[in-house]
Amino acid sequence: MTADPTRTPLLLTPGPLTTHSRTRSVMLKDWGSRDPAFVDMTRQLRERLLTVVNGAPTHVAIPLQGSGTFAVEATLASLIKPDDKLLILSNGAYGERMIDIARRLNRRFLALHWPEHLPIDLQQVDKAVALDPTISHVALVHCETTSGILNPFEQIASIVLGHGRGLILDAMSSFGALPIDLSKFPITAVVASSNKCLEGVPGIGFSIVDKSAIAAAKRDNIPSLSLDLYDQWRGFENNGQWRFTPPVQVVAALVEALRLLEEEGGPAERLKRYQRNFSTLRSGMEQLGFRMFLDAAVQAPIIATFLPLDDVDLRSDDLFVALHTRGFSIYPGKLTMRDSFRIGCIGAVVPSDFEALIDACREIVSLKRGRS
Amino acid sequence: MTADPTRTPLLLTPGPLTTHSRTRSVMLKDWGSRDPAFVDMTRQLRERLLTVVNGAPTHVAIPLQGSGTFAVEATLASLIKPDDKLLILSNGAYGERMIDIARRLNRRFLALHWPEHLPIDLQQVDKAVALDPTISHVALVHCETTSGILNPFEQIASIVLGHGRGLILDAMSSFGALPIDLSKFPITAVVASSNKCLEGVPGIGFSIVDKSAIAAAKRDNIPSLSLDLYDQWRGFENNGQWRFTPPVQVVAALVEALRLLEEEGGPAERLKRYQRNFSTLRSGMEQLGFRMFLDAAVQAPIIATFLPLDDVDLRSDDLFVALHTRGFSIYPGKLTMRDSFRIGCIGAVVPSDFEALIDACREIVSLKRGRS
Ligand SMILES: Cc1ncc(COP(=O)(O)O)c(C=O)c1O
Ligand SMILES: Cc1ncc(COP(=O)(O)O)c(C=O)c1O
Repeated sequence: MTADPTRTPLLLTPGPLTTHSRTRSVMLKDWGSRDPAFVDMTRQLRERLLTVVNGAPTHVAIPLQGSGTFAVEATLASLIKPDDKLLILSNGAYGERMIDIARRLNRRFLALHWPEHLPIDLQQVDKAVALDPTISHVALVHCETTSGILNPFEQIASIVLGHGRGLILDAMSSFGALPIDLSKFPITAVVASSNKCLEGVPGIGFSIVDKSAIAAAKRDNIPSLSLDLYDQWRGFENNGQWRFTPPVQVVAALVEALRLLEEEGGPAERLKRYQRNFSTLRSGMEQLGFRMFLDAAVQAPIIATFLPLDDVDLRSDDLFVALHTRGFSIYPGKLTMRDSFRIGCIGAVVPSDFEALIDACREIVSLKRGRS
Repeated sequence: MTADPTRTPLLLTPGPLTTHSRTRSVMLKDWGSRDPAFVDMTRQLRERLLTVVNGAPTHVAIPLQGSGTFAVEATLASLIKPDDKLLILSNGAYGERMIDIARRLNRRFLALHWPEHLPIDLQQVDKAVALDPTISHVALVHCETTSGILNPFEQIASIVLGHGRGLILDAMSSFGALPIDLSKFPITAVVASSNKCLEGVPGIGFSIVDKSAIAAAKRDNIPSLSLDLYDQWRGFENNGQWRFTPPVQVVAALVEALRLLEEEGGPAERLKRYQRNFSTLRSGMEQLGFRMFLDAAVQAPIIATFLPLDDVDLRSDDLFVALHTRGFSIYPGKLTMRDSFRIGCIGAVVPSDFEALIDACREIVSLKRGRS
C-alpha cells in the first residue's frame, strides 16, 4: 500500500506527522549554529513564519527550542505580567493546559469552560470581558486538537480587540492552513510549532508576537531563563543567532517545509488539500458505519474524531493495533467522556492515502462483522 | 580537503558538531510518537544513557525537549525546593548561567567564583559546605566549555557527598567521554545534551537523576509545566511516552549515536580518540606559534582555547572567516577578559581532520606573515 519504506507506517496523526521527503533530506547535513549559512537560515525562518500570517509590519517571529507546549508557556510567561489578568477560554485538553501553565507561573487568571463538542460561545466571552476591566488578555485554542473543533477566532478577536484587550492564540494545529491574518486582527501573539500544518519535523515551537508587546516584556518578570521570549528575541535581533544551541537540522527542515508551503500556493491551497483529505476520509468512514463526534458545522478539516461502531465490538485500541499492522498510524482519542479515535488529515498526505486507509478499515471491519 | 559535501564546512566546535553519516541518515524517516517502534526507541535511549555513567541501579534517565540549558533549568527547578539552598561553583559562563537560572527560579543560592583559567578549589568548597549546614546542594560544571578547563569532579563529589549534601553536575561537554561513574559517586543529578560528546544532533537534553531525589520532587514546587522533570519522568514510567511531542528524528539520531559510542568501545575509547585529536591540534598550532590559554594540567581534551599570535595581526574574527572560506568552522572565544578562539576536538572527527585544519592555518598565517 505504502511502498515507500520511509512512509511506513503512514502517519495520519496530528503530529509528528508524515513529512515530505525533501523536508527530511535536508537533515543529512551538519550546520554550525554560528555559521553564516545557519544565521541566514534562521533569518529566512523568521521571515517566512511572519509571512504565513501576514504579520511582517506589526509582529516579530520568535522561534524557541522544544515542543509546542514550551512555546505556549514561554509566551504566557513573557507577556502576561504579574499585574495582568488572563481569561482562558477552554473547550478541550489544550485549553486546560494553558490553565495549568498559568497556575504554575503564578499568574492571575480566570477560565471559562465549554464541553468538548461545543465551540466557544461569543456572547459569554463578550460579557466576561466587558464585566471585568482587570482582564488584560484573553487566550484560546484555534483548532482544539482534542476533538478537532474549530473555535471562532476572528469573531473572538473582534470582541477582545474591541474591548481593548490582548489576545493570545494557540494556533498549534491550524497555523499554515486555517486563515490567520494579523493585518486584519493584530492580536498580541500567535503560537504554533514546526510539526503540524507546516509539515516540518518536531523540535521547535514559535510565537509571533506584536512588536510593542515584546518590547514591553520585562526580564525581571519572567520566571525562567530558557523560556524567556524577550531574551530570545533580543538574541535574534542582536546577532541573528539563537541564545542557546538550536536544533539545526530541525530548523533546516522547517525552512524547507516553508518553501514547500509556498510552492503549494500558501495556506489557502494547503487548506484545500486538507479539505479533500478530510472529505475522502469522512465519506469513506461513514460508509463503513463510523460516526463523527462533532457536528459538521464546527469541524475543522485538520483532525477528525470518530466514535466506535455501534454494531461491531471493535474498541478504538484494537482498531489502532489492527491498522498499525496494515501500515497506518492513527491516534487514540483524547475526549474525557467516551471511547473514540482520531485521524489526522494533515501532513504530506493526499486523498489516495485516505482511500488506502479506508480499504484497510473496511477489511478490519468485515473480519469483525464476519465473526459476529 | 573535506570532499564529503555533508561535512562542509567541517565543524570543529563544541556543538552542534560534526556527526557520523549513520547518525544523520536515520533521520530520513518519520515516526509516530505513540507508535510501538518509537516507544521502544525511547526506552532504549533511557537505558543507554544510564549505562554511559553506570547509573542503572540507582538513577533514572529523563530526556527533555530543548537545548542543554533547558535540561539544566529543569533539573534545578525540579530538584531544588524552596526551602533548599544551592551552592553554585563557577569558573566560567556556564557556571554563571546556573546562577542566572537559580535567580530566575527564585531559589535560595550562594555562589563561589574563580577566574576562568583556574579550576575550582577543593579547600574552599570544603570550607563553604562545612560552615553552612543549610546548603542542601552544590552545583558545578564538569568541563567549563568557556575555556575548556576540567574541574575536579571526583574530588568535589567526595567532599560534597562526605558532608551529606546533594551534587548536581553540568556534564554538558563531558558526558560520553570523560569518566563519570555513578556507582562510585552517586550524586543527585548529571545533566547533558545530545549534541556534544555523544555526537548526536541537537534538540534534546537529559538529566540522570537519583531515584529517591526524583521521587521526592513535588509538582507544587515546580514553577514550570514544560520544565517539570517529575511529570516528565512519571510520563515515561506510566506509558513509555513523552508528555509533549518529542523531536522524533533527534531521538532516533541520538539512539544511533549511542550505538556508535558502544561500537567505538564506550567513553574510554572515545576519550582516547579525542586525546589524539587534541594533541594533533595542540602540537600543530604551537608549531605555528599559537599559545593555549590554559595550563596543560587543567586542560580537558574537549575544547581548546587559543590566544592570537603575538607577532602577526590576525584577530580571532579574521581567522574565523579565513578558515571558513577554507571549509572549517571553529568557534569564537567566550573568555570575558581577552581575544581568543576555540577549537573543538569532539564529534565524528579524527586526527587527519586536524592535520587538514593545521595546513589551512599555516597558509593563513604565512599569507599574513608574508605581508608584514
Ligand atoms: C492545540 C494544541 N496546543 C498545544 C499542543 C502541544 O504541543 P506539543 O505536543 O508540541 O507540546 C498541541 C499538540 O498537539 C495542540 O494540538
Ligand atoms: C558546560 C555547558 N553547559 C551548558 C551548555 C548549554 O547548552 P545549550 O547551548 O545546549 O543550551 C553548554 C553549551 O555549550 C555547555 O558547554
